[in-house]
Amino acid sequence: MDPTKKAIQDYYPPELSHCYGCGRLNQDGLQIKSSWLNRDQKVSIAYFTPRPEHTAIPGFVYGGLLASLIDCHGTGTAAMAAYQAENRSWDSLPPNRFVTAALNTTFLLPTPIILDSNKPAEIKLIGEVNEIKIRNNRVYKVIVQIKLLSEIDYFEKTRVSGEVIAVQMPDTFSGSN
Amino acid sequence: MDPTKKAIQDYYPPELSHCYGCGRLNQDGLQIKSSWLNRDQKVSIAYFTPRPEHTAIPGFVYGGLLASLIDCHGTGTAAMAAYQAENRSWDSLPPNRFVTAALNTTFLLPTPIILDSNKPAEIKLIGEVNEIKIRNNRVYKVIVQIKLLSEIDYFEKTRVSGEVIAVQMPDTFSGSN
Repeated sequence: MDPTKKAIQDYYPPELSHCYGCGRLNQDGLQIKSSWLNRDQKVSIAYFTPRPEHTAIPGFVYGGLLASLIDCHGTGTAAMAAYQAENRSWDSLPPNRFVTAALNTTFLLPTPIILDSNKPAEIKLIGEVNEIKIRNNRVYKVIVQIKLLSEIDYFEKTRVSGEVIAVQMPDTFSGSN
Repeated sequence: MDPTKKAIQDYYPPELSHCYGCGRLNQDGLQIKSSWLNRDQKVSIAYFTPRPEHTAIPGFVYGGLLASLIDCHGTGTAAMAAYQAENRSWDSLPPNRFVTAALNTTFLLPTPIILDSNKPAEIKLIGEVNEIKIRNNRVYKVIVQIKLLSEIDYFEKTRVSGEVIAVQMPDTFSGSN
């Protein structure tokens, strides 16, 4: 199996796949997909194509969307890192499904919506795990650093940097609905 | 004029009113409205009704939306505080229109989507200005603390706390499109 060909969100259990940001079963949502960049499994990657309505100031993507992408790519990266640390496959049980305890974002440069000729400017997210906490052979906390880049400069400059402190889904999220 | 009856976003110039989070001209957006809570003009307030698709784990609002609400209520509060500090009315020129330099959010408790009988659980945002920086009689930076509360417990407990570091819109946002 080539790990770069899979998205972790495709392995979330159905009842946990309704997130607006990354749930494959949320038809109205953003449906972002996080995977490992390559076989090293050290850097995670996700892409997103902004839509015209995702405006801030005309021409640029609004910060809330960028924060949402960082959030979901962060929890996705945390899940991938947890399976890796536990030496388990993504379809093994119990599932690793992380939620965000804290999300810190710094907006360094505006992120354009349009590349040229009305073609959207694709967004790329790069994730790296900074810290991973294990108790009783289970990962319970992962800190992920994310860089958000734009196609406008061939993904050169970091436009938004983010830190996601992700924790295993607590019992207060019943999952029932 | 009763300041609690006005929303600052209704005074943004049309070309700066397309933000997905708070632009009155973005038909697909969230259209949040920030105003002063009362005549003291010390605390800002905004409400938002989450939609079914704004799911995280079923039953709860996804973090990206909550971050978006904090972001836009933060920049709105910054604009109100700037007019106040400059002793100017909201329709005077030049406009105060802030963008986010940094957004830091801490998720303390899950935020429910549904109150009961499929009635949505309204979200309330409370903002307070922590710091305001003035140069040449113009406010250029405002730091706003935000608390996000839910109707589920009569807006008692803080579910998400946020800090928005807002700066006057820089020239890199051309505003043309």
